[in-house]
Amino acid sequence: MIWYKEKNDNDIVVSTRVRLARNLSKYPFPNAMNKETIKKAREEIENCIMNSNSTLSKDFKIYNMLDLEDTDKKMLAEKHLISFDLLDNKDSSVLINKDENMSVMLMEEDHLRLQVIMGGFKLDEAYETANRVDDVIDENVQYAFDADFGYLTSCPTNTGTGLRASVMMHLPALTMTNSIQRIISSAGGLGIAIRGMYGEGSKAYGSLYQISNQVTLGLTEKEIIEKVKNIVNQIAEHEKQARKKLLENNRDYIEDKIYRAYGILKYARTISSKEAKALISDVLMGKNMGIIDIDNGELIELMIMAEPAYIEHMSKKKLSPEERDKKRAELIRDAI
Amino acid sequence: MIWYKEKNDNDIVVSTRVRLARNLSKYPFPNAMNKETIKKAREEIENCIMNSNSTLSKDFKIYNMLDLEDTDKKMLAEKHLISFDLLDNKDSSVLINKDENMSVMLMEEDHLRLQVIMGGFKLDEAYETANRVDDVIDENVQYAFDADFGYLTSCPTNTGTGLRASVMMHLPALTMTNSIQRIISSAGGLGIAIRGMYGEGSKAYGSLYQISNQVTLGLTEKEIIEKVKNIVNQIAEHEKQARKKLLENNRDYIEDKIYRAYGILKYARTISSKEAKALISDVLMGKNMGIIDIDNGELIELMIMAEPAYIEHMSKKKLSPEERDKKRAELIRDAI
Repeated sequence: MIWYKEKNDNDIVVSTRVRLARNLSKYPFPNAMNKETIKKAREEIENCIMNSNSTLSKDFKIYNMLDLEDTDKKMLAEKHLISFDLLDNKDSSVLINKDENMSVMLMEEDHLRLQVIMGGFKLDEAYETANRVDDVIDENVQYAFDADFGYLTSCPTNTGTGLRASVMMHLPALTMTNSIQRIISSAGGLGIAIRGMYGEGSKAYGSLYQISNQVTLGLTEKEIIEKVKNIVNQIAEHEKQARKKLLENNRDYIEDKIYRAYGILKYARTISSKEAKALISDVLMGKNMGIIDIDNGELIELMIMAEPAYIEHMSKKKLSPEERDKKRAELIRDAI
Repeated sequence: MIWYKEKNDNDIVVSTRVRLARNLSKYPFPNAMNKETIKKAREEIENCIMNSNSTLSKDFKIYNMLDLEDTDKKMLAEKHLISFDLLDNKDSSVLINKDENMSVMLMEEDHLRLQVIMGGFKLDEAYETANRVDDVIDENVQYAFDADFGYLTSCPTNTGTGLRASVMMHLPALTMTNSIQRIISSAGGLGIAIRGMYGEGSKAYGSLYQISNQVTLGLTEKEIIEKVKNIVNQIAEHEKQARKKLLENNRDYIEDKIYRAYGILKYARTISSKEAKALISDVLMGKNMGIIDIDNGELIELMIMAEPAYIEHMSKKKLSPEERDKKRAELIRDAI
């Protein structure tokens, strides 16, 4: 099941993602390849995976970036199944499994970027799954691997394990009290990056943050996973305390903010993606704080549904930004 | 029935008020009287009205400003039954009828200020009622009247007929498009004042404006009434056109604004009087434009209920401003 539809009892950790960067030894990195060799290498890896005897191979479907509609491509990115960088890359493809919790991007920055994404806080499970898929591929291709450096990658920051473990957290109280800035700084010193919902350079709309390891060299996979797990647990504890303090010191303000957010989502006739995410975030916090009791708890799903391409997909046609804002308000009213 | 509970089919005119300023010839104006003569004159007028054989006299009840609780006094002002100036005047009293559509303030700026207030656009009816009460009083006292100047009053702007005809209008579209400023200027040139909900110096919260004649000298009562009626009709036409244009050019924006206002009123946990009035005004406009269909149409009553003293009265105790904002939100949620 796709991550945002999975049942998740964790109030703060929304999802877990593990990504492995891999390259084939027989080809240079994608940025040094020409169109023909990229196509050749891409098809070679596609065939390796699709023709392998693993049960995994039966689950995957190949999507060529060249063939995909703009809206469909963007929707894959909004669902975190591909990177936004892949959208403009016509030579690449992505393999996605039926459950939409595994994807393999081919010819993005590296030859292969294998990703497992799950709802909730499941670093071990996601890593084990990624490792299993990696082993299947490894049986059929020759990875670029150096005894000293480990897996070689296009960008040195991924060299070593090639592992990025990232956890998406909902941190409304730390955002509201502005404590998040201090946490971002100190996490940086520990080799942990805290970024917006869509990674590097993206904003933390809806108070959603990606917490991930910055370097993959000099630590084992297990150590990286433990390190991220450790920091995530600490941040979650900070968020819990911040929520408690907000309730103790500003209960009226918080209750009002949450209920107003709910009222606007329930009645607005036009709403931007940014505002929708902020309001959904308030309501989600209110639900988790026990302040507001709403039937439909699929608020994270609603944030994804609020994304531009998702809206267009639901409307089955191209929309102007104004039409999108109206359609978004309609979808949210119906859902909430 | 008090004006804001009267059924009113007029979308734009909320209420009509006619006020007559009168003084007794045997006393100087209140600002030149001492405490004892004020008391003597006040009781004399009170007795004249209460002991008259008119059926009107049976309806009236006397409230001494000295004896009234702060909250009750303020509530009378919020309901437009006395002026806010009267609140700090311990020597004055007010006679109010059972239906709360007539009041006679004694020893405010003038010896008598007789007022009739009705829901909707009823200038003739209100004037005739005021005139009838005035005649009853006139039979029992000697008014200060000059053959050339007419009724003499404390402030020269009221000398002549002593009549102020004022109409409260709901002008959200003219406010939103900022056209109201131009209308205020041009009305001024015609001897018509346009002021906030509570007259001179008050703000037009909730887009409620008082339209009234500025001078009472040199025109007959009928002429004043006709003049105000004429201007009110013109302004109402402007408001209608402005609403139509808003719908034609900004329907999405207007619908969103109205529904968001409704959502906030329905869910907010704390709300100021100013914000409440602005949002109620939006919903009222939406209802009158046929955009939003709400059962409870008593939105003008809700604006009065949103006033500070009314809130305290409903709570039956003194409230801090924060407590008041919470109670207001609660009352509005229950009402809407």
